[in-house]
Amino acid sequence: MRSVVIVGAGVIGRSVGLALRRHGVTTYLTDADPEAALAGERCGAGFAARPPRQADIAVLAVPPDQVAPVLAEHQKLGTARCYTDVSGVKVPLHREVRAYGCDLTSLVSGAPVVGGGQGPAQPRADLFDGRPWALTPTEATGNLALNCALELVALCGAVSVLLAPEAHDRAVALVSHAPHLVASLVAARLLGGDESAVRLAGQDLRDVTRTADGDPERWAEILTANAGPVADQLDDWAAEAQAMARELRDAARSGDATGPVRLRETLRFGAAGRARIREPDTPRP
Amino acid sequence: MRSVVIVGAGVIGRSVGLALRRHGVTTYLTDADPEAALAGERCGAGFAARPPRQADIAVLAVPPDQVAPVLAEHQKLGTARCYTDVSGVKVPLHREVRAYGCDLTSLVSGAPVVGGGQGPAQPRADLFDGRPWALTPTEATGNLALNCALELVALCGAVSVLLAPEAHDRAVALVSHAPHLVASLVAARLLGGDESAVRLAGQDLRDVTRTADGDPERWAEILTANAGPVADQLDDWAAEAQAMARELRDAARSGDATGPVRLRETLRFGAAGRARIREPDTPRP
Repeated sequence: MRSVVIVGAGVIGRSVGLALRRHGVTTYLTDADPEAALAGERCGAGFAARPPRQADIAVLAVPPDQVAPVLAEHQKLGTARCYTDVSGVKVPLHREVRAYGCDLTSLVSGAPVVGGGQGPAQPRADLFDGRPWALTPTEATGNLALNCALELVALCGAVSVLLAPEAHDRAVALVSHAPHLVASLVAARLLGGDESAVRLAGQDLRDVTRTADGDPERWAEILTANAGPVADQLDDWAAEAQAMARELRDAARSGDATGPVRLRETLRFGAAGRARIREPDTPRP
Repeated sequence: MRSVVIVGAGVIGRSVGLALRRHGVTTYLTDADPEAALAGERCGAGFAARPPRQADIAVLAVPPDQVAPVLAEHQKLGTARCYTDVSGVKVPLHREVRAYGCDLTSLVSGAPVVGGGQGPAQPRADLFDGRPWALTPTEATGNLALNCALELVALCGAVSVLLAPEAHDRAVALVSHAPHLVASLVAARLLGGDESAVRLAGQDLRDVTRTADGDPERWAEILTANAGPVADQLDDWAAEAQAMARELRDAARSGDATGPVRLRETLRFGAAGRARIREPDTPRP
């Protein structure tokens, strides 16, 4: 990989630039706001200029609702041999991409997992190191585009995870979107709590609700874009919570402390489920 | 405060001993297992012996279902001028204490908030520093007992939070018990996820589910003891989740992305609720 165009010089775009330049890749930044591209150049993420020839790949690090029109525009200009994006919900994206008449053989949609409720704060070359980066090729995607995307992800230090668009959206509903909404629900209920109740909050509650700090508008967009899978998760989950509430009330009435079987199961499965995702993670305040 | 008897030489009991000895208080450890008391003495938490005269206060750091009988026994022996415990659910506790015919004027039930899913791992003198410590006096509690308990909490470095027993149990349902169950539910659902879905887990999910690592049996006891308030939280919460799922589906059907009003509210309230409990907390892996 020799040259990459990064469309959108925000935190993600600049971080991609910084990451790629570690390996001697030449990066070109462009942004609807020319000042942003210049700022990206100043921070070392790439040249705020057009590449002299067709780039190997273009990374569309733009807001989700702009990916399709931006892709169509750059494909018309022949900016790069293939294209990827970083938006979080894939089924609606591909629908829009088709509606815009984009070429799907040169597109491998993608999404780096860089969590943190508000999104990363500062551009960093190591932002993606060791992190998952989803890639969602379709049946139309060509081998050239796929291999180029795999190389991009590797150069950014991340671990590629391939899924179909539908599977991706269900996956992120499970591991990111619904949990975020749950964290917000728990945090929102604190507003109704007495002062003395809130005084009893401990580290556990801060952990559960940390992600609720995220930008509400950005999350509303994401969740609405992934409405179906997220609604499925919420419903399954609410049903489980209600079943446990019933069990608890029955146990309280009957005085049978061994009654809550589903509760015990959930607690045990919870510990097992947690073990599936345990790995040395970064301590954060 | 000059002398304190600590009944139950586990992690909490030993930590209380270590904390008090920082201020020159003489502490005496006793435990159903004499080896535990001796181990507590060796770690510096106090003397594994009976006090020569009546102690100022006895801290019953025993499992919740043993508090009432242990209290009755020590009140009969006249071990201390007043008594406190550290168990997490107060209404059932006071019911048992009355059933055992204990003297309520000398009891101030309490509960230090020392979170961390599995409970603290090692006894530490600074375990309670800056942490909340709930105290739940009843109408029967005498001033001497209350002031003694306030002093105990202060010497342990903690911040007293006074609540009636019913208010305490609703409070911990809100800020600890139901959130723990929520975290377990989210984590339990990971067991059903594909490998590739789980690979997309990020820091946010680890935060939300961290507390699910806790001891399932210990938590089952706590939640069952606080069945009513916890069931109330779960039901309210499930209803809210279902309402948001309906909103999301309606928005998906109508194509109206501004439709999910309740969703946006929850996300905004979530950020506001999080702000109520934000404070410099210890980074943990």
